[in-house]
Amino acid sequence: MVNYQVAALDRTFAALADPTRRALLARLDEEDSLSVSDLARPFPVSLPAIMKHLDVLSDAGLIVRTKTGRTVACQLTPAPMEQAMNWLARYERYWTEQLDRLAAFLEDDKWQASPASSSNAVSKPRRKKSTKRGRSRTK
Amino acid sequence: MVNYQVAALDRTFAALADPTRRALLARLDEEDSLSVSDLARPFPVSLPAIMKHLDVLSDAGLIVRTKTGRTVACQLTPAPMEQAMNWLARYERYWTEQLDRLAAFLEDDKWQASPASSSNAVSKPRRKKSTKRGRSRTK
Repeated sequence: MVNYQVAALDRTFAALADPTRRALLARLDEEDSLSVSDLARPFPVSLPAIMKHLDVLSDAGLIVRTKTGRTVACQLTPAPMEQAMNWLARYERYWTEQLDRLAAFLEDDKWQASPASSSNAVSKPRRKKSTKRGRSRTK
Repeated sequence: MVNYQVAALDRTFAALADPTRRALLARLDEEDSLSVSDLARPFPVSLPAIMKHLDVLSDAGLIVRTKTGRTVACQLTPAPMEQAMNWLARYERYWTEQLDRLAAFLEDDKWQASPASSSNAVSKPRRKKSTKRGRSRTK
């Protein structure tokens, strides 16, 4: 991976490592554009503190600020998050494999329990085979 | 979201915001378990610096260290990454929508270009309809 991509990933993850910055991004996700004062309003944090957070988000390329007269408007530019998500996706198999093991355990349990229990034991909710795993994000 | 989850997400993203720490995780992804000295060997960084990075990764719950005699072994425990990935997944629609717009543009181009161009114009590679979008991570 070339160096500027490594540095970009550093900045993206560092920008996301703060709850106020994540909440600022979440607010900008709900609105097309917000002035700095409108954006800062719900936060129990001083305006200069918000401005510093916006600097970090802007340096990471996660927002853009546009000045019109005396008003600065902020917009979400979430493109750098894709690289972060791709980096994490390499590890996704660990938690999907955990679900596979859980599914396998429940399946085994069904077959082991069947002879000793009643024939309608498979109708118990905990024996229901999950087929939804790993598809929720592709909607 | 409860506070300990917020703090966990802060620690996960902060731990991932460093290229040496990401590379340490990538090495542990390739091996079941590695001693600290084996893990540190390929890095052009002092052992105390590696130890500090391992502290950050351990605090974030991304690795576990087990001491056997005088050897400390490290193992990857990537579970906290799932929460980070779920947080990012909320924004995934932005880049998949961008691909939708690109696909729509290429589709429009095909229909607009067809009457003026030769009848076999649709066989050009750039007019090929992409059907793979958004599925790469579900393999």
